[in-house]
Amino acid sequence: MNLSRSRYHAPGTSPGALIERKDVKLPLRILLFDYDSGHFEATEQASVEQCVTGLASAAKTWIHIEGSVDAATLRILGEAFSLHALALEDVLSSGHRPKVDRYGEQLFAIMALPYVERGRIVAAQVSLFLGKNYVISFQEAGGDIFEPIRRRLRAEGGRMRNRGSDYLFYALIDVLIDHKFPLIEALGDRIEDIERAVLDKAAKSEARKIHALKRDLLTLRRFVWPEREVVNRLRHDEDELIKPETRIFLADCYDHTVQIMDLLESYRDMAASLMEVYVSSVSNRLNDVIRVLTVISTVFMPLTFLTGVYGMNFDRGAGPFSMPELGWPYAYVGLWVLMLAIAGGMVLWFRRRGWF
Amino acid sequence: MNLSRSRYHAPGTSPGALIERKDVKLPLRILLFDYDSGHFEATEQASVEQCVTGLASAAKTWIHIEGSVDAATLRILGEAFSLHALALEDVLSSGHRPKVDRYGEQLFAIMALPYVERGRIVAAQVSLFLGKNYVISFQEAGGDIFEPIRRRLRAEGGRMRNRGSDYLFYALIDVLIDHKFPLIEALGDRIEDIERAVLDKAAKSEARKIHALKRDLLTLRRFVWPEREVVNRLRHDEDELIKPETRIFLADCYDHTVQIMDLLESYRDMAASLMEVYVSSVSNRLNDVIRVLTVISTVFMPLTFLTGVYGMNFDRGAGPFSMPELGWPYAYVGLWVLMLAIAGGMVLWFRRRGWF
Amino acid sequence: MNLSRSRYHAPGTSPGALIERKDVKLPLRILLFDYDSGHFEATEQASVEQCVTGLASAAKTWIHIEGSVDAATLRILGEAFSLHALALEDVLSSGHRPKVDRYGEQLFAIMALPYVERGRIVAAQVSLFLGKNYVISFQEAGGDIFEPIRRRLRAEGGRMRNRGSDYLFYALIDVLIDHKFPLIEALGDRIEDIERAVLDKAAKSEARKIHALKRDLLTLRRFVWPEREVVNRLRHDEDELIKPETRIFLADCYDHTVQIMDLLESYRDMAASLMEVYVSSVSNRLNDVIRVLTVISTVFMPLTFLTGVYGMNFDRGAGPFSMPELGWPYAYVGLWVLMLAIAGGMVLWFRRRGWF
Amino acid sequence: MNLSRSRYHAPGTSPGALIERKDVKLPLRILLFDYDSGHFEATEQASVEQCVTGLASAAKTWIHIEGSVDAATLRILGEAFSLHALALEDVLSSGHRPKVDRYGEQLFAIMALPYVERGRIVAAQVSLFLGKNYVISFQEAGGDIFEPIRRRLRAEGGRMRNRGSDYLFYALIDVLIDHKFPLIEALGDRIEDIERAVLDKAAKSEARKIHALKRDLLTLRRFVWPEREVVNRLRHDEDELIKPETRIFLADCYDHTVQIMDLLESYRDMAASLMEVYVSSVSNRLNDVIRVLTVISTVFMPLTFLTGVYGMNFDRGAGPFSMPELGWPYAYVGLWVLMLAIAGGMVLWFRRRGWF
Amino acid sequence: MNLSRSRYHAPGTSPGALIERKDVKLPLRILLFDYDSGHFEATEQASVEQCVTGLASAAKTWIHIEGSVDAATLRILGEAFSLHALALEDVLSSGHRPKVDRYGEQLFAIMALPYVERGRIVAAQVSLFLGKNYVISFQEAGGDIFEPIRRRLRAEGGRMRNRGSDYLFYALIDVLIDHKFPLIEALGDRIEDIERAVLDKAAKSEARKIHALKRDLLTLRRFVWPEREVVNRLRHDEDELIKPETRIFLADCYDHTVQIMDLLESYRDMAASLMEVYVSSVSNRLNDVIRVLTVISTVFMPLTFLTGVYGMNFDRGAGPFSMPELGWPYAYVGLWVLMLAIAGGMVLWFRRRGWF
Repeated sequence: MNLSRSRYHAPGTSPGALIERKDVKLPLRILLFDYDSGHFEATEQASVEQCVTGLASAAKTWIHIEGSVDAATLRILGEAFSLHALALEDVLSSGHRPKVDRYGEQLFAIMALPYVERGRIVAAQVSLFLGKNYVISFQEAGGDIFEPIRRRLRAEGGRMRNRGSDYLFYALIDVLIDHKFPLIEALGDRIEDIERAVLDKAAKSEARKIHALKRDLLTLRRFVWPEREVVNRLRHDEDELIKPETRIFLADCYDHTVQIMDLLESYRDMAASLMEVYVSSVSNRLNDVIRVLTVISTVFMPLTFLTGVYGMNFDRGAGPFSMPELGWPYAYVGLWVLMLAIAGGMVLWFRRRGWF
Repeated sequence: MNLSRSRYHAPGTSPGALIERKDVKLPLRILLFDYDSGHFEATEQASVEQCVTGLASAAKTWIHIEGSVDAATLRILGEAFSLHALALEDVLSSGHRPKVDRYGEQLFAIMALPYVERGRIVAAQVSLFLGKNYVISFQEAGGDIFEPIRRRLRAEGGRMRNRGSDYLFYALIDVLIDHKFPLIEALGDRIEDIERAVLDKAAKSEARKIHALKRDLLTLRRFVWPEREVVNRLRHDEDELIKPETRIFLADCYDHTVQIMDLLESYRDMAASLMEVYVSSVSNRLNDVIRVLTVISTVFMPLTFLTGVYGMNFDRGAGPFSMPELGWPYAYVGLWVLMLAIAGGMVLWFRRRGWF
Repeated sequence: MNLSRSRYHAPGTSPGALIERKDVKLPLRILLFDYDSGHFEATEQASVEQCVTGLASAAKTWIHIEGSVDAATLRILGEAFSLHALALEDVLSSGHRPKVDRYGEQLFAIMALPYVERGRIVAAQVSLFLGKNYVISFQEAGGDIFEPIRRRLRAEGGRMRNRGSDYLFYALIDVLIDHKFPLIEALGDRIEDIERAVLDKAAKSEARKIHALKRDLLTLRRFVWPEREVVNRLRHDEDELIKPETRIFLADCYDHTVQIMDLLESYRDMAASLMEVYVSSVSNRLNDVIRVLTVISTVFMPLTFLTGVYGMNFDRGAGPFSMPELGWPYAYVGLWVLMLAIAGGMVLWFRRRGWF
Repeated sequence: MNLSRSRYHAPGTSPGALIERKDVKLPLRILLFDYDSGHFEATEQASVEQCVTGLASAAKTWIHIEGSVDAATLRILGEAFSLHALALEDVLSSGHRPKVDRYGEQLFAIMALPYVERGRIVAAQVSLFLGKNYVISFQEAGGDIFEPIRRRLRAEGGRMRNRGSDYLFYALIDVLIDHKFPLIEALGDRIEDIERAVLDKAAKSEARKIHALKRDLLTLRRFVWPEREVVNRLRHDEDELIKPETRIFLADCYDHTVQIMDLLESYRDMAASLMEVYVSSVSNRLNDVIRVLTVISTVFMPLTFLTGVYGMNFDRGAGPFSMPELGWPYAYVGLWVLMLAIAGGMVLWFRRRGWF
Repeated sequence: MNLSRSRYHAPGTSPGALIERKDVKLPLRILLFDYDSGHFEATEQASVEQCVTGLASAAKTWIHIEGSVDAATLRILGEAFSLHALALEDVLSSGHRPKVDRYGEQLFAIMALPYVERGRIVAAQVSLFLGKNYVISFQEAGGDIFEPIRRRLRAEGGRMRNRGSDYLFYALIDVLIDHKFPLIEALGDRIEDIERAVLDKAAKSEARKIHALKRDLLTLRRFVWPEREVVNRLRHDEDELIKPETRIFLADCYDHTVQIMDLLESYRDMAASLMEVYVSSVSNRLNDVIRVLTVISTVFMPLTFLTGVYGMNFDRGAGPFSMPELGWPYAYVGLWVLMLAIAGGMVLWFRRRGWF
């Protein structure tokens, strides 16, 4: 819930200061890919130094860094690829809003990779640098989602190998965006479940489930909305790092973000409507319960009163008007008939009013 | 409810990959029309090859493909008419947001055809290609809605035969948009029904009906909104595939989309207002029920207490203050008078407070 | 409620087809006015042919057609004044959204004339053509609202006679817009009534009245919003049919539409607030009722219990602890004192808690 | 509540017609000020004729007209200062939306002066004409708010005397806007009062107070919103009647309107939140009441049942199983113990469930 | 709550008048810093005169004034640095909306410093002047937040010393914006607490806590929204006082304001959702309570009625049908069996309906 925890430096810290997060420390893994239409070379556990020397090659380079990167590694990379200090600071401090910035010779983009953790949707930050012939990507957490990209890179003759680094950059962003679809499908299933439960029996915990759903929709929305802007800017800005033939794919990618936003909006409206139905069905059940109570009370109270009357101990000998009924031979039977008539009349009256 | 099911490829799939849907498989039917101001030729069950050869003719061609198209057919068509790979991918994966794109020599539009299935409004995707002298349309499901177009095509001397392919393109879009009107009229009837039910008796299931109505409004809205954009772009973009004399008809078509949006908005506001009335009438009924309970309890509780008092067994012989009333000759009658007075007083008091 | 009924052609109908409404058939009346700064000639029950010949005169012409116009009449007029087919179609099919279109030498505007029918605000369509020296107006229903215009036309030397057809066109639109004011004043009175009722006693039917009010506000809003756009476009578009000296009056007219929108928004907010107050006052009344029930029950239940205790039939002879109280001479009086003390204590306790 | 009453002419009235209001007739007072950096001359009860002749002087003139101006006076002024007929109509008919219009050589602005009348915020219209060297202001009601301006005018050497008429025009607008601050402060106090009441005890009338507050916020908002536009246009439009050195003060004035809008928005959100708290605290109190009822009923019903059992009159002599308990020597005492145990158990159970 | 108290002058006051606040009087402290890449000189308790002479030096000057500044000091400073009268007025009257204005050779910005006072978020005004080689800052309250800046100034060789006054200006704004993060984190913690409480047990005071949360969110939002505009204008306006190399840092600062707005929006949606859950859980608890009452009543009312029947005193000798059951040997035992059966049946029936 606390969306801001540990995501900011102490106010007044010098901008560009590289301060590592204390709370989370994930093992670091550097993957280095050197590829060209003709050749492909992958180093699964590369060192920073290998990355820096890789820059010299004429081929295209993709450096993918998984886990919690330390300030030292960042500084080496930053110097070798002349990455901007403010961008590096953003890489290190997670939880940033997706955005794209142009720093000198590079494009720097922050994207979000949402995944489910302890029943909640959370988001890992993915930071991407695009240079003339390299892509550097930092992924904090969220599992190995770029395997399909690597598979396509390995396949000789594929578009991925022939096109420039900007196509790889696009492909990474595309994967990050398309990764929202399975999450959204799961949300759709949850809505269906809630709808069924609410319409059938108004189980008690539905309000909590709707709340949890809204929270997750909110989390997703917080990232998809700026990501739409990121893709839109990449597609429209006449940046020479993104070639025109890649822009057409970014347009496709933009359609996906719009579709995701669309689905999130629809789900939000559905959730709001379900909450209303839930609340009204809680009220309806209350009505049902109270109606039972009222019928029972209304039937038995007059009867109990009558039995009370004839349980009184007035002295029958005191006078002719002192409970003479007690001595009548058919009074008891008559009272039963009267009481049944009263009860039956009440029930009929409630029935006619449609109470049950 | 699950608006996203089966509508996306696995993240990381290469863009433009033609992957057929597994879950739905509808019989394929290809209709080929070759027409001109002078001649008209219809092939109801054409093969893909016939379509490809039809392209050579100088006349205008309309290829209409109904049902689930397979990847092979798409590839043949795509090559013959040089359709863009991203467009073909969109044709195959259903559930897209309406949009219009310019790919090389063609306009590619996605529209939605909503229809009712098992009491819910669902939408079939209709994909349209407009070339210089041909229109290719793909319709997944939703029934034969283009029969009026075919009738107008058959009629010699009609506008449809004389004008270019762009007019046919417009006419198809017009049908798709006007098809929302009967659905909206049905929604209007449902609102009227709900309004009558809510204002009269607050039947229990109205909340569900309002929810279902909102869901259908939402579904329609999701498609009409982007369709408005599609028609607006077709009308305003200076695309040479759409002739100026067709634009005036698109303007008319645009008015219809605006009117549909308008009606949807009004219905949404009506639905929200009805929900409020429904909730408040549930509360009112609760008040009624509780009021009955309170009146009954308030009348009988004091009476029952009094009968309890004179049902006590204190020994009258113990002293002059030990229930002497029991021996008074008119005590019983007096008690009845007292009890009737209490009951009557209570009823009068409630009446004056307007409780019934 | 059903805002879309009978307002659309069957999907696929050729655009510009003149299809008469079947459901409503109002008597047709054609009024023809031929006027100039110098002369004025009115034909109250003109034929279409008279209208067509009137065109030849050098003076300005106003043709006003009331009731359900038939397709034949429209076709004759359309040919004589070269009115566009799409515009004629819009004249015939009622219920259109207000709009203004330029067709060749004419301006075509659709406006709405709201009036009250069976307690609800409904709207009649008014269609207006403005040519170089003529105005043609079609009014389906809603009463004779243009009498003040005719009066001003008859008055020699008035602005209306001297100025061009565009001033008449403006004057008609002005009347149509100003006709919303009395309706809005009536809505204001209804809000005042509801406010008084809700704040005083939360009568049962207020929710319905608020709902009806919202519905009428919605209906008005649906027409005023696009009318604002119509007036704005007439005022700003550099259309040579509207002379600059008329634009200043259109600006005034625009201010009125803005003021109407403003009032509608305020009333909508008031209605929403009143609904909240109503709901909360229903809850308050429920609280009141339940509180009475609780006080009564809480006072009498312990007392009834006590009378029950001393109504038990334990054998006083069985032992010294078997209801010895029954034989005490002051037990009965003591019990009364106790019971009164309990009842009084309860009442005091409730009073202190502020329950009544 | 009825915001539109008496504020419109009969539809179809000729534009620019000067129709006096019938319902309100306030005494008319004309104040005439003739001033310059060097001299200052005030006529407190001027006639229209004096005003007209005052125009001839080389100095700057301010004519301030308080109360209900009649059509005759307006016509004389209109002719002397060549005021536009549409502007004069607006002066006469009160309740206009704030706006600014340029008519020939003049700027015409309508502003609102809100004040409290019978516990509600209402607004008087203030109309302002700015000419080259004169300002004419019409104020219908609302008290003498321009006294500080007059004081500053009287003070020799002040900015007001040295600067042009546009500065006086600005100063009047500034007073009108700043006059909203005390009203807003009063609204803030009312919110504080309501908050205290709602959080403490959910008094019954709070819903009404919140409703009244919302109504007043709405009234203020209706005037401040367009006034912001007025000031913004005065500040940005390159109108030569407003000198650049005055624009800087208008910018300051604009900041005030933004701040007022801001406060109104915040108060609206606060009011909405308070309504929610109020509704939920009403529900909580209902819960409290019902819980008391339930506890009392649940404790006493079983006990009363038990006393009922031993109040039955089965014939002990009929057999060994016919109420033998009645004859046991410790049965009575035992029953008391049992009943106290039941009552105590119930109370403990409720306590553990946190019911009281 | 009263956001407008004491924040405005009496309407009609001359603009630029320096009127001191009466209600708050905080001790004044002037800090003077004279620095350059080479030297740094700090005067912790400077006099106004020192500040004025400091201007003559070639180095950069930062004057920081803490507490309630008096009109005299302001006038001296204003004359020395030629600060605009309207800006000085804004410095003196606190509670202004954040804004940035260009006055002659200076940029004048108002920012807000929120801090917690008596459990509520309040905001102190911070006013900043940026001249060619000086920064003057006024901070009314809120604690010593600029210490990190001073530390960075003292450090020789740091960016802060080498760059121009615009960098210091940026750094002060950056601190003010980043100071919202800890407050927002605290709000996030409060949301978590409320969520836990609401989902677990719907404690009574949660509505108040949610209200307090909303109020604080509102307060923050009121300041962050215009601050975003301030930073955006500083970043984009081609003002020569802000050097291009500083703009890149302002862009970073802008990202922070966007992120803060984002978090505030998310928290607002969360708070609204929590309120709904809270209200629905209050309803659920009501249901629970009423269900207990109904079960108890429904079980015991028929039983009590039966004991009432056999507690009646009809004379068994009056005839064979006058309560013969009283003499049957197993009637008492049988009645117990019947009563237990009724009670058990009721309980089973409730169980099957899922009432407990």
